[in-house]
Amino acid sequence: MRERIKAGPAQEVVEYLFKPRALTSPGRDFRILLRINRAHVVMLLRQGILSSEHAKALLDVLSDLESQGVEALPFDPGLEDAYLNMEHAIIQRIGSDIGGRMHTGRSRNDIYATITRIAVREALPSMAGPLLSFIGLLLDKAEVHTDTVMPGYTHLQPAQPTTMGHYFASIACALERDTQRVLQVYPRLDLCPMGACAFAGTGFPIDRALMARLLGFDDILESTLDAVASRDYVSELLSATATMGVTLSRMAQDLYLWCTNEWATVEVADEVAMTSSIMPQKKNPVTLEYIKSGAGALQGALVSSLTVQKGVNFMHCQDMSHEAIAPVWDALDKATAMLRLAHRTIEGLTIDRQRLLQRARQDFCTATELADLMVRNKGLPFREAHGIVGNLVSEVLAQGAPWDEVDSEAIDRVALRVSGRQLALTAAQVRECLDPTRNVQRKTTPGSPGPEPTKTLIASVRSSLAHHSLTLNAWAEHDRRAQHNLVEEMTTLTREG
Amino acid sequence: MRERIKAGPAQEVVEYLFKPRALTSPGRDFRILLRINRAHVVMLLRQGILSSEHAKALLDVLSDLESQGVEALPFDPGLEDAYLNMEHAIIQRIGSDIGGRMHTGRSRNDIYATITRIAVREALPSMAGPLLSFIGLLLDKAEVHTDTVMPGYTHLQPAQPTTMGHYFASIACALERDTQRVLQVYPRLDLCPMGACAFAGTGFPIDRALMARLLGFDDILESTLDAVASRDYVSELLSATATMGVTLSRMAQDLYLWCTNEWATVEVADEVAMTSSIMPQKKNPVTLEYIKSGAGALQGALVSSLTVQKGVNFMHCQDMSHEAIAPVWDALDKATAMLRLAHRTIEGLTIDRQRLLQRARQDFCTATELADLMVRNKGLPFREAHGIVGNLVSEVLAQGAPWDEVDSEAIDRVALRVSGRQLALTAAQVRECLDPTRNVQRKTTPGSPGPEPTKTLIASVRSSLAHHSLTLNAWAEHDRRAQHNLVEEMTTLTREG
Amino acid sequence: MRERIKAGPAQEVVEYLFKPRALTSPGRDFRILLRINRAHVVMLLRQGILSSEHAKALLDVLSDLESQGVEALPFDPGLEDAYLNMEHAIIQRIGSDIGGRMHTGRSRNDIYATITRIAVREALPSMAGPLLSFIGLLLDKAEVHTDTVMPGYTHLQPAQPTTMGHYFASIACALERDTQRVLQVYPRLDLCPMGACAFAGTGFPIDRALMARLLGFDDILESTLDAVASRDYVSELLSATATMGVTLSRMAQDLYLWCTNEWATVEVADEVAMTSSIMPQKKNPVTLEYIKSGAGALQGALVSSLTVQKGVNFMHCQDMSHEAIAPVWDALDKATAMLRLAHRTIEGLTIDRQRLLQRARQDFCTATELADLMVRNKGLPFREAHGIVGNLVSEVLAQGAPWDEVDSEAIDRVALRVSGRQLALTAAQVRECLDPTRNVQRKTTPGSPGPEPTKTLIASVRSSLAHHSLTLNAWAEHDRRAQHNLVEEMTTLTREG
Amino acid sequence: MRERIKAGPAQEVVEYLFKPRALTSPGRDFRILLRINRAHVVMLLRQGILSSEHAKALLDVLSDLESQGVEALPFDPGLEDAYLNMEHAIIQRIGSDIGGRMHTGRSRNDIYATITRIAVREALPSMAGPLLSFIGLLLDKAEVHTDTVMPGYTHLQPAQPTTMGHYFASIACALERDTQRVLQVYPRLDLCPMGACAFAGTGFPIDRALMARLLGFDDILESTLDAVASRDYVSELLSATATMGVTLSRMAQDLYLWCTNEWATVEVADEVAMTSSIMPQKKNPVTLEYIKSGAGALQGALVSSLTVQKGVNFMHCQDMSHEAIAPVWDALDKATAMLRLAHRTIEGLTIDRQRLLQRARQDFCTATELADLMVRNKGLPFREAHGIVGNLVSEVLAQGAPWDEVDSEAIDRVALRVSGRQLALTAAQVRECLDPTRNVQRKTTPGSPGPEPTKTLIASVRSSLAHHSLTLNAWAEHDRRAQHNLVEEMTTLTREG
Repeated sequence: MRERIKAGPAQEVVEYLFKPRALTSPGRDFRILLRINRAHVVMLLRQGILSSEHAKALLDVLSDLESQGVEALPFDPGLEDAYLNMEHAIIQRIGSDIGGRMHTGRSRNDIYATITRIAVREALPSMAGPLLSFIGLLLDKAEVHTDTVMPGYTHLQPAQPTTMGHYFASIACALERDTQRVLQVYPRLDLCPMGACAFAGTGFPIDRALMARLLGFDDILESTLDAVASRDYVSELLSATATMGVTLSRMAQDLYLWCTNEWATVEVADEVAMTSSIMPQKKNPVTLEYIKSGAGALQGALVSSLTVQKGVNFMHCQDMSHEAIAPVWDALDKATAMLRLAHRTIEGLTIDRQRLLQRARQDFCTATELADLMVRNKGLPFREAHGIVGNLVSEVLAQGAPWDEVDSEAIDRVALRVSGRQLALTAAQVRECLDPTRNVQRKTTPGSPGPEPTKTLIASVRSSLAHHSLTLNAWAEHDRRAQHNLVEEMTTLTREG
Repeated sequence: MRERIKAGPAQEVVEYLFKPRALTSPGRDFRILLRINRAHVVMLLRQGILSSEHAKALLDVLSDLESQGVEALPFDPGLEDAYLNMEHAIIQRIGSDIGGRMHTGRSRNDIYATITRIAVREALPSMAGPLLSFIGLLLDKAEVHTDTVMPGYTHLQPAQPTTMGHYFASIACALERDTQRVLQVYPRLDLCPMGACAFAGTGFPIDRALMARLLGFDDILESTLDAVASRDYVSELLSATATMGVTLSRMAQDLYLWCTNEWATVEVADEVAMTSSIMPQKKNPVTLEYIKSGAGALQGALVSSLTVQKGVNFMHCQDMSHEAIAPVWDALDKATAMLRLAHRTIEGLTIDRQRLLQRARQDFCTATELADLMVRNKGLPFREAHGIVGNLVSEVLAQGAPWDEVDSEAIDRVALRVSGRQLALTAAQVRECLDPTRNVQRKTTPGSPGPEPTKTLIASVRSSLAHHSLTLNAWAEHDRRAQHNLVEEMTTLTREG
Repeated sequence: MRERIKAGPAQEVVEYLFKPRALTSPGRDFRILLRINRAHVVMLLRQGILSSEHAKALLDVLSDLESQGVEALPFDPGLEDAYLNMEHAIIQRIGSDIGGRMHTGRSRNDIYATITRIAVREALPSMAGPLLSFIGLLLDKAEVHTDTVMPGYTHLQPAQPTTMGHYFASIACALERDTQRVLQVYPRLDLCPMGACAFAGTGFPIDRALMARLLGFDDILESTLDAVASRDYVSELLSATATMGVTLSRMAQDLYLWCTNEWATVEVADEVAMTSSIMPQKKNPVTLEYIKSGAGALQGALVSSLTVQKGVNFMHCQDMSHEAIAPVWDALDKATAMLRLAHRTIEGLTIDRQRLLQRARQDFCTATELADLMVRNKGLPFREAHGIVGNLVSEVLAQGAPWDEVDSEAIDRVALRVSGRQLALTAAQVRECLDPTRNVQRKTTPGSPGPEPTKTLIASVRSSLAHHSLTLNAWAEHDRRAQHNLVEEMTTLTREG
Repeated sequence: MRERIKAGPAQEVVEYLFKPRALTSPGRDFRILLRINRAHVVMLLRQGILSSEHAKALLDVLSDLESQGVEALPFDPGLEDAYLNMEHAIIQRIGSDIGGRMHTGRSRNDIYATITRIAVREALPSMAGPLLSFIGLLLDKAEVHTDTVMPGYTHLQPAQPTTMGHYFASIACALERDTQRVLQVYPRLDLCPMGACAFAGTGFPIDRALMARLLGFDDILESTLDAVASRDYVSELLSATATMGVTLSRMAQDLYLWCTNEWATVEVADEVAMTSSIMPQKKNPVTLEYIKSGAGALQGALVSSLTVQKGVNFMHCQDMSHEAIAPVWDALDKATAMLRLAHRTIEGLTIDRQRLLQRARQDFCTATELADLMVRNKGLPFREAHGIVGNLVSEVLAQGAPWDEVDSEAIDRVALRVSGRQLALTAAQVRECLDPTRNVQRKTTPGSPGPEPTKTLIASVRSSLAHHSLTLNAWAEHDRRAQHNLVEEMTTLTREG
């Protein structure tokens, strides 16, 4: 192999380039390489590039390698990488006259581009699965809490009453869009580079479409240059995970506040908390810290890959084939960890309905409804009603009185002073208005926190989830069928031979 | 408005928060605000929340404001933002009893979420248009150069012959995927937040679907919390532009090398070059530097937005409503600049076909074909042929002889030494093999650099482009129709009134 | 100038390259260019490269330009940039025979490298000044609040009593390190590139050290290549501001929580709050949101610059001379805005001492002290004491009893059950132990929250601040003196002439 | 420990939080923990907090643990982390009455803050060492090549003659500044958090200064809150490595071009090259790709840490104590790999002096000197001379004539046409002027490429290097002495005991 290059690789090259790349996932690469080699041999035979005798010998030795496993294949760094080590083992077993023919009409460039795509194709669902499960859990929780009234916030100040059900369902909406972004990478990922060879295709009459089919891809990745030069699907996937990381960090931040001593409206389960080695009273919600931080790691992975790719010539090189994709594995693992920890944490969450309701009663979050009431029942312009209630709030705050005990007289005192009006709201009107539960129930327009629109919202996200599940299953099934077909092809061909 | 808050805003708040936000695009915001206000009034009237008399007065004053233009509306920072300044002007003109009713059933939160979505919806095509044009230009160039043979590179070393047509078409493939990513943001962007109000909807019987329709949106953004709390479409758009920026930077890097004195295979036009104030011989391809660098600016914008959003509570706040979207405008402008400069640069590029062909003859990039020939015609295993040619290359290099004059005897000398074989290739075989033009012509499998597959590739990208153009047109048409309908609704309603 | 390049610049080149660069800070660039030109003429004359007649004419025309101001100098984009426009104006006024001599022994490359360094040198203190002021304010606040007892947090759970004074002083410590990082850029920034010319120096006998002195630099930037190729001081400055942004975002996040309805321990002043257009009760701490978000913008600027620079050949090019530094101006403005808003916000902060103390009494944050007491007075191993108190906390929580009313009997009930011990702490011991104020007072080791160590800490940061102020003043004075010397040199030389 | 928390940790918490943190560098953490525990026991004894009998027992068991090694200490995830596992082992061996006393006056918060600082303090030189060596190598190479004339570039176009020596020395300048930035982290890193305890110090009369001394720190990290809440030294170190990564990527990009077939002025050694599995002629400079890409990984690490820290409350939490520092280890390893590969690559580089000189003769890079000659010898204003030479270059290019054969007649033909002048330069003048070697020799001002200023430049960087080496040695010596002192203290104390 290294005829043109006389000396063996420097020790630093072995340590920093060859070993880390070959030994990160040797089992996975071995398995995928076997699959690619088999498909390639089948294709070469079908196209008449390989004799059936040679093909049979190659398929046999590949099966031997498989049954002996990756451990039986020692990694010689002098042979640079996993592929050449496997080729070397084959040649050692069946001689170079046959073993030397397997590499006809291809290159390591298209092989590694293909290995990575298959590996990402496999890894993506192992993150998307927990994502779908977690959204499902949020929807379950949302369903249980459509009438768990609580204060909603803007700018972290109590704003208006809402429900925990609406909150969970809304997070589910955001995560469902994150799911869309994760899954929409697939059509651009599920394309086969094989046949691109070094970058310029080959003069051998190979069948690219057949290779794509045998390897379970949806289609070929058409341009042979693009096939080995581009890794934009990695940028896209890392963007999608970084964006999802942000959503999770925001939810974690909410829960992190709610389980403080000051909010004390939710409590995490003991199994996801840590105590302190010196403060005996501590119960620290460390999984939420992990999830918040995860957004940083995911963004770091994205930046790493994008920066590696910046300004690199549009061609095959190790910047693209190795370094640009290196962050993807840790990123998928990190995202999965965040999702599974979020799942576990929310699953065990205790929600204090009483306290939530009580806060919603007292923290002025029903003030908008009072202004709306003046508009609805007394025909005031909204801006004027807003002014009256704003003054009323200031007064109540100054007196330190409880907001939910404000009465019609107090309102009229302010209204008279501010607007010169007497509103004469009835006690019942005022009481209903200041009741956060009634307040929420009045929200019946689509997407709002009322119980009915929340249920519709939940149903709508559930239906998207079901659709995404079907998609994941279809991909898995497509791959299973392709693997099955490859085995059948091999059997037929070797039988024919 | 600031009843609850007694003091006016601090000078720093005016300088750093209110002014920059209100005065970045006052004309655009004014125009969109008018549109939203009109749609809202029409909706309120249709739902019986506003009397037709009040609605008519409001629509009239909005038309007055429009005809006077944004310049006639002085910005008072004490009124915080563009919306409250406009409301104030309305109340000043028609009194608070009518003017104060316009804000019923909504909030600044849903208004600004909507303004931004409409503004991004408008801005996106102004970047996507030049993107489509530029890809079109690349395909035109590709068509002209399907037979412009040149060396192709891996690791920036000559690898195998290819054509300039294949190169341009391959870049077009990558940019077409970038287009997919830019455009796929749209379904998540084109949803209407109106009706979300502060975040919890409203008790007024508003019609969210009607608002969405009147404002030209595809649908409502269902959850009222999600509608004001999320800006993930910004992250997604910035990811798509950053990824496109990487593709452009890679193409720019190629051209940057090709127009060096050392490559000298292309030359940029004088209009896109700069000279030096002291080196009279200079012709510097500065647009390519701009395009390369642009990838950095676009990535910076992405990181800025993602980091702003990290760990922010899932609610409306200025982190999300202002700071997370702030980078999007410059990013779209930068991306547009990169595309237009790339367009202009490639349009005027001179490509030296002779020199490209000559390089391809002499830089050993036909060596693979020689090995392939030994496999095809002499039945050698590829690995053995690779070994012979590798040794041959070393020998030719050592002698400093021209590669394209290697003959059959030289080959056999090496073959005998290395493999103990005599290959006896004919002179014609060797000559054809070392001719890069014949070499390229032999590449006929899909996506490879041969003239036919390149033409197919071009046609395939062209067809995607056509599809994307239709999409852009459909969006524009949808918006035009919505604007038209709003005018009609206003006319009907004011006539009815 | 464009002899070698026949055509004028394309409209896109003017729009995207020439105009934005020349028109971002025309006044600043004009002023600095005049200074550089004057120093250069003085140096050329001193070195005998320019006759005194020519030098005088050049200095005169530069003074004319100065008195007419930047507005009198129209920007012709055909002349590419500010420098060539100024040179052109000079030649128009005094003819090319004299005006054409000013550019001897230099290049735009070293000129722009120098302009940027002078501009950053000027801008840095305008950010560092507010930074020092803000730290000063924090120390003032810290001094006032050395006995404002409050709960301290780890993992956002009450941990142990501390004081607001210690908190403010600790933030001041972190910001003082940020100051160190901002200021330590200066020695690498304050070096003069003039004389580097295009990158390879010049054959004219120029005096680089004199130029550096006349322009107020500490020294020359030695290597002529490095001088025009490097912008690492920009990366370093943007790193320092991004890191400072993180510190500010963390402080803002604390205050953001403390002014919630749930914490309610501090309140921002009305002038830095916004209300809601629909929720009359709202008082939103928007400056804190701005500060939190600013960390994102600052990090985006850093990433933009680093990514622009990645993989760029080590030479002068626009990637380095323009794009890599482009983010620095907005970043310095943003950092200044964050600091001034933080200043204003903390200046007007109301701190509720009663509520802070009350929370510290009841939120179990004195539990560690109880364990420590058992170690100190009863000789228990800490781990055992920790176990007893942990069980006690669980019990009190289960009973919903107030923590600060725990008594010796309750303690012994648990101690007996858990450890088989009777501790028989006296009532006074227990009371003192559960009193957060006594608890804090007992913290006397260096750096801890006790009043004395806090005062020492404040004094220590104050002394660093004073040192930094002296540094800033020394830099300003050095620049003033250099400007004065340049004027003197000009006067002498023109008088001599 | 988990009295307050009843349930054991969830499996996900063990898998994602406890295990990765405890098992990343168990040996290192074990070693540092032993050191901290010993110093703490010595300090407690000296302060009279621990009896000498207890102290002796603790020191003995710590020595036992050390001699048995980390492998003998099984990690029980139920005990959360390395520290508690070690404490547990101690208590198991010597009982809780003594073993339970070791944790008096401290917390895991200050322990882990200290472990990380010691670990980074150890790791930093293992990256700084190769950095200093590599700069040293560059200076050696620079020395050898002060007269290796070559074209220098701006905008990647030939600009003016320079030397390879000047190039290497200039890169060394940039890397020396990177070294400054890496090393200047140290004063902020080398401060001891011990005694901060949870964040609020302790009531026990500990001696923080003694702890700092025993652990080899320069001083205590004063504020106890800051000590556990801040990790800005990590941001600073990652900024410094990211900035250094950019410098390395730029140098790698230069070499990457120079070893192309088109430049062919340098060649990498076989040991650092890879060939192709199908293209027998290939010699791919893969280490340069690795170095270029490394800049991306280092920037990703920086972004990861900064984003994790953004908006986190100023307190101890796992965001800061674990996630913010997580990227630092890989980043230091990556930086070291880049440096060692750069070292190996440049060490073995072949530089083709002939070809470099020949290029410098023919690529017009002497044109500036010709204009300068007209100024020097004929008194032309520079701008006019620039115009003449610009026209001359255009003409020579149009004729395809060799630049270094331009003669006085050709010059005067153009001068007459453009400026109406006859310059009548002598043949000797023109020849000398167009000779790049003479051209370079004329550059004698400081920092320029002439042999003498280059030697001065090399000497100046060498002197900085020597200074940095002394610094590194002093740190190592300081640590060694501290370790020695700790052993002596232990011996004395246990003997006294």
